Amino acid sequence: MDGVPEPLVVAYQGVEGSYSDLAATRRYASRPGGVRLVGCPTFRAAAEAVRSGTAACALLPIENSTAGSVHEVYDLLAAGGLTITGEAVERIEHCLLGLPGATVEGLRAVLSHPQALSQCEDFLRAHPWLEARPAFDTAGAARAVRGAGDPSLGAIAGRAAAAVYGLVVLAESIQSQEGNFTRFVELARAEARSAPPRGQAGDGPRKTSLLLTLPHRPGALAAVLQALAARGANLTKLESRPLPAAPWEYRFYLDVEGDAAAEPLASALAEIVGLTAELRVLGSYPRAAAAD
Amino acid sequence: MDGVPEPLVVAYQGVEGSYSDLAATRRYASRPGGVRLVGCPTFRAAAEAVRSGTAACALLPIENSTAGSVHEVYDLLAAGGLTITGEAVERIEHCLLGLPGATVEGLRAVLSHPQALSQCEDFLRAHPWLEARPAFDTAGAARAVRGAGDPSLGAIAGRAAAAVYGLVVLAESIQSQEGNFTRFVELARAEARSAPPRGQAGDGPRKTSLLLTLPHRPGALAAVLQALAARGANLTKLESRPLPAAPWEYRFYLDVEGDAAAEPLASALAEIVGLTAELRVLGSYPRAAAAD
Repeated sequence: MDGVPEPLVVAYQGVEGSYSDLAATRRYASRPGGVRLVGCPTFRAAAEAVRSGTAACALLPIENSTAGSVHEVYDLLAAGGLTITGEAVERIEHCLLGLPGATVEGLRAVLSHPQALSQCEDFLRAHPWLEARPAFDTAGAARAVRGAGDPSLGAIAGRAAAAVYGLVVLAESIQSQEGNFTRFVELARAEARSAPPRGQAGDGPRKTSLLLTLPHRPGALAAVLQALAARGANLTKLESRPLPAAPWEYRFYLDVEGDAAAEPLASALAEIVGLTAELRVLGSYPRAAAAD
Repeated sequence: MDGVPEPLVVAYQGVEGSYSDLAATRRYASRPGGVRLVGCPTFRAAAEAVRSGTAACALLPIENSTAGSVHEVYDLLAAGGLTITGEAVERIEHCLLGLPGATVEGLRAVLSHPQALSQCEDFLRAHPWLEARPAFDTAGAARAVRGAGDPSLGAIAGRAAAAVYGLVVLAESIQSQEGNFTRFVELARAEARSAPPRGQAGDGPRKTSLLLTLPHRPGALAAVLQALAARGANLTKLESRPLPAAPWEYRFYLDVEGDAAAEPLASALAEIVGLTAELRVLGSYPRAAAAD
């Protein structure tokens, strides 16, 4: 112990320059001792890195304002052993990137993930000489443009990918829909649950994520929400998830303001346990400020 | 009027052999007078075809058991002028397709939508000589394999795509997760709301889809659910949608058993109107049987 803090190892899904990399870079920018970000090929690999101790935590997307919840990350949480210790909200701003010297008029094809291409549909329609080509991910598209060295190729990706791959921003904020946000959650080993909140003062407002399984009968969910409402606990998210394997049970994801270990949520949860087939606290953590 | 029914024109999103094409083919197979299916490049184009009268209806995906709700289709419904007149549930079974004479061992690369490739992660890991390559959609990947005429190329797509593009099924049901279902909704012009249900007997159980906007205060949603539960109306789906433009209001999607124009739902809705900032009935329609 020489007093110099070790860098925090944080897993994310994707490659350098991705939106996940950007979210992690921002979140841990001011951490004493620094941070080492590790890109993983899949969400599962990032979760595995945390479970095995290779990484202290993982920052994974859980919800996007246009594409919805990332069910795969909920499934990893449901599988156990992990807890949510924090959240971060990032604005997604797609940029058109090219090699230095390239121009929008000189481009012939644009690479990106099909979802990003579709989110930039209006821009592509207004520039009909740009042929859209699918790629695995936005940052990978930027890397491919750099690798090809062809000034007639562009990529749709975040601004961070330009710096990482030596590209220039030819057009910015080209998505059709204003206000595209992704919410990320920080996952740590379940033992970390009672640890002080990471990277943020512990005194601000807190939030709790729950997973419920309810019997399929009128009023089951109403009773749960009534138990929360009666104590003034505010919902910030509620979603049912079809469970094909069990057609008469429903799984719900809930986010509630407050901490599961503090009142009024603690006694609301004590009441809810009796109303549900399953109640899992996925984590209580500091609430993120809205994105810039 | 010669008594011969005209074919029904149905818009879907995608190309021939896609999962949407398959869902539409099954749904309208026994319609007297037949059906003409029209593939559209985007959800918006399919909705536009209905609004303009080019198509009688559109069959669009609204929810997938692993990927979640298709927010873009909800947004098209929220924009008005359309109503849900029916639903269909399809099991998604990914197959590995190749040219006649191709073998799994002889393949070198596999094309598909990134999401389909990721859903077949276990299969690809067990066959490490297969290089995954991104494509815009599953059926387009099958078409590309046919176009290239290269027996070392495969595609991950539905079984229907094999027949359409003259390919053979080299492996079936290769998705990692059992039970991948997509729910499709049939959209028609809003005037069609009171018309008799299409393509199905009108006497079976019905279902109503609602869109609500609620003030951000504890108990707002609990009161809505209580109004439904008190009348025995069963929820089959509930989802909150973040609205970045209005951070203090929440939009909810609800599916409820029953018809909005019949009791007990009619009086529940009359009560709910007073509890919500906005209440929209997106449609009442015959409930689909579960997928085969």
